[in-house]
Amino acid sequence: MFVHFALKADLVWSADLPPEAIETAGHTIEEANRVQFRKGVPAGTPDREIGRVVRWCVNGNLLSLEIESGAYTRAHDALFRFRKQVAASLGKFRLGIRGIMVHEFRITLQGEFPAEFRAPCLPFIRKTVHEGDILNLELVMTASDLENKVPDRIVRLIEEKVQAASYGGKGEHWELVFESGEKPRFFDQDPTEEMIRRGWLRHALSRGQWIHGPQSTQLFRAFEQIVFDEIIRPLGFTEMIFPKLVPWEVWKKSGHAKGVYPEIYYVCTPKTRDPAFWEDVGDYFKVTGEVPVDLIREKIDGPIGGLCYAQCPSFWPFIQGETVANDCLPIRIFDRSGTSHRYESGGIHGIERVDEFHRIEILWLGTAEQTVEIADRLHERYLHVFEDLLELEWRSARVTPWFMAQEGMIETETSCGCGSRIGTTDYEAYLPYSKSWLEFQNVSINGDKYPKGFNVKIQSGAECWSGCSGIGLERWTAAFLAQKGLDTGHWPETVSRLVGEPKELFKFL
Amino acid sequence: MFVHFALKADLVWSADLPPEAIETAGHTIEEANRVQFRKGVPAGTPDREIGRVVRWCVNGNLLSLEIESGAYTRAHDALFRFRKQVAASLGKFRLGIRGIMVHEFRITLQGEFPAEFRAPCLPFIRKTVHEGDILNLELVMTASDLENKVPDRIVRLIEEKVQAASYGGKGEHWELVFESGEKPRFFDQDPTEEMIRRGWLRHALSRGQWIHGPQSTQLFRAFEQIVFDEIIRPLGFTEMIFPKLVPWEVWKKSGHAKGVYPEIYYVCTPKTRDPAFWEDVGDYFKVTGEVPVDLIREKIDGPIGGLCYAQCPSFWPFIQGETVANDCLPIRIFDRSGTSHRYESGGIHGIERVDEFHRIEILWLGTAEQTVEIADRLHERYLHVFEDLLELEWRSARVTPWFMAQEGMIETETSCGCGSRIGTTDYEAYLPYSKSWLEFQNVSINGDKYPKGFNVKIQSGAECWSGCSGIGLERWTAAFLAQKGLDTGHWPETVSRLVGEPKELFKFL
Repeated sequence: MFVHFALKADLVWSADLPPEAIETAGHTIEEANRVQFRKGVPAGTPDREIGRVVRWCVNGNLLSLEIESGAYTRAHDALFRFRKQVAASLGKFRLGIRGIMVHEFRITLQGEFPAEFRAPCLPFIRKTVHEGDILNLELVMTASDLENKVPDRIVRLIEEKVQAASYGGKGEHWELVFESGEKPRFFDQDPTEEMIRRGWLRHALSRGQWIHGPQSTQLFRAFEQIVFDEIIRPLGFTEMIFPKLVPWEVWKKSGHAKGVYPEIYYVCTPKTRDPAFWEDVGDYFKVTGEVPVDLIREKIDGPIGGLCYAQCPSFWPFIQGETVANDCLPIRIFDRSGTSHRYESGGIHGIERVDEFHRIEILWLGTAEQTVEIADRLHERYLHVFEDLLELEWRSARVTPWFMAQEGMIETETSCGCGSRIGTTDYEAYLPYSKSWLEFQNVSINGDKYPKGFNVKIQSGAECWSGCSGIGLERWTAAFLAQKGLDTGHWPETVSRLVGEPKELFKFL
Repeated sequence: MFVHFALKADLVWSADLPPEAIETAGHTIEEANRVQFRKGVPAGTPDREIGRVVRWCVNGNLLSLEIESGAYTRAHDALFRFRKQVAASLGKFRLGIRGIMVHEFRITLQGEFPAEFRAPCLPFIRKTVHEGDILNLELVMTASDLENKVPDRIVRLIEEKVQAASYGGKGEHWELVFESGEKPRFFDQDPTEEMIRRGWLRHALSRGQWIHGPQSTQLFRAFEQIVFDEIIRPLGFTEMIFPKLVPWEVWKKSGHAKGVYPEIYYVCTPKTRDPAFWEDVGDYFKVTGEVPVDLIREKIDGPIGGLCYAQCPSFWPFIQGETVANDCLPIRIFDRSGTSHRYESGGIHGIERVDEFHRIEILWLGTAEQTVEIADRLHERYLHVFEDLLELEWRSARVTPWFMAQEGMIETETSCGCGSRIGTTDYEAYLPYSKSWLEFQNVSINGDKYPKGFNVKIQSGAECWSGCSGIGLERWTAAFLAQKGLDTGHWPETVSRLVGEPKELFKFL
């Protein structure tokens, strides 16, 4: 895609420029166009591709510039390069630069735009004109926006959108890795309905949320025990406790801030803890029996972030900015200290699709080779668990990596030889009652995504990689019960031994 | 406190009233004043205390009424009593009531108002005049507000505020129950600082939030094991899983909606899951590196409720509206499935005061006698744990019940003989480094508060009571380490055996 930048800006000086200074400025501009702006530009690059001052004038203490460029020494980069140079050359007149005022900033992109492409809609894009293979943007930019390279990021965003629009029709990647074949089935009903009928669980008062009775909890804890005995202990994972409220700062570094928004439960904080500030809210409830939601909205700040979505990002601040010693790698840890929340589509679904769920998150990091090896060993252990202990009808498949799907990315970049191993493997179980496959857990090799985002390095200088595997207890339960039913007599020995007799604590009239 | 109500309202009829109907209306009013409004009123009550129509007239299809009362057959009750009566008596003219328009509603309260008293500020209080011992309120009321008894609730609210203002100076109740006496101390530093120094934990990126390394997590799990072995198993508690996002519907029934607002982490939901609706938010981040919080605010609904605050309210919808069989009582359960969150005051505090924490919540319900007995047995077991296993320097004290403190209540009402046992016992441990006592857990007998709020009954007809006890793992850890220090050699045998050697997983350069 061809790109063109054009800007108009004033350098504001500490005093009016005397004639000698204007003359010096002219020389500096001529030299910048001829020398400085061409530094680092490949030989043979056409002139029109390189940043240059195309017009200038002086009015009192203002040096007005018009700069244009293609992809080399982009107009905004040229501006700051020139600022440095002209500040030095006019210093001898005791003149200093007091500020930069940007009056116009235009970006023109030329290339093939798929029909599905929509230009971005952002507060600093004043005007967008899209005709055929030309996209013209008029931006409202401050000098600090230009220094923060906002124009470059807008160009990259548009290129991503073009790519996504072209890719749109192709759907997600899915490639079978393993298939268990048929297993004994003892049930063809919706397991959630049967669990409700037997009092194993009951829908809670928020959407996609359940209260688990003793029996359902016994099953969760039995699965947890299997995960401990067969995966966590043999592979040497150690428990940590990751926070469950996730502030933006974490999602900015983990990349989730790129696109996770539609499924987040957002968290807001009180503007103050002063009881007097909140008195009218409680009073309103006491008088009407209703909670004044609109009034509360005015009294809260944020959102400051959201509820745990992916579980592993919250770990990374623990080692953020650190260089990890070679001999403590690979680091192998897990967390099971709380709930995850996703805003799923409305209506009541079974426990296979919930807004609030319980997951054991396994996380490891090390060199690329160590990371890949642990993923391979995890796959072996999961195979054992699902084949020999749970006796499930399941399959696994390589799919679009979760972080690409969640962040709206199209391609992942890697600078390492193991690059082909980066990605997600989903485990799916067959649900006889709905004749469909349910993703019930995954294993992901995330490459250097997190170490890069949180600035974590390895002592040896090797690239730091990480992986994660989420074990969803609701999903395991849904898969297991859908195939085996709720009568423990049909359950494989390990599960029925660990669960014991389902406890019937409650009797209602 | 003396109370006076006065209202002006129109009954809107389906057609203009003919002269005969007006005459009948007059008779009905006269009869209401003489007979209906006096039903249920104690003999000898002065006339001015009883509801009566003081003026009326007819204009087309409007029957305009002015009603006044003291505390008996209050003006709004009189209005609805009269509506029923006049609808019957004018029915023979083929006239029906189409609606009620309330034009004025005034409440006057006379009594002693403490200096600290502030009148409530609510959207339907148009004007408040407070002079000396007279408080005058002008309300904006609809007929349905009157039917919902909003005026009565406003009077009750004002009486509560008067009571709270008188009570204000007296502080919270605190009455020593048990004191362990001195125990061996091996540490006089802030345990959190030492934990950080040794890499046991690290502050996370949100306020009052920590990431627990392996060593801290080992201690949490050791305490959890002690709670299982010494309390949960011997006393027969069974695990359940309570939801951790709490919608208003739960806090309305649990009473927290009365006053918990200053400390809540609020939860909001996306207006839609449509990715196109959220595209600009992700684009903004991609271009600026910042999350556009104000833009997100416009795209979310709610708050729909908040994060888990008290842990046990979320259980109750499991048995809401049920009558529980005698022979399954007492129900004894617990939950340890996720985090609790409180918006504490700002700044970084140690793990003894955190915004995000981990608690094992023990809950029981049954008859009053069963509930009290379990609380007594819990106290015995806790005594054993803190005296013999953790060897803590601790004390316990009867304090203002938590729900009264949280809901801004002054007095609890009970209709049962065990009433004197309702309340909270706090367990406090001595912190040598700050020379202060830390509340590290509690046991509460909540009377019929929850069963009433969630409409739970017992088969026998006995009053249903419940109790709860929150075991805060951060608080146990803070108390234990503050007294014993971080060197396992000084720890009591049970704890050091369960913890094992603190795992040093991470080494940083």
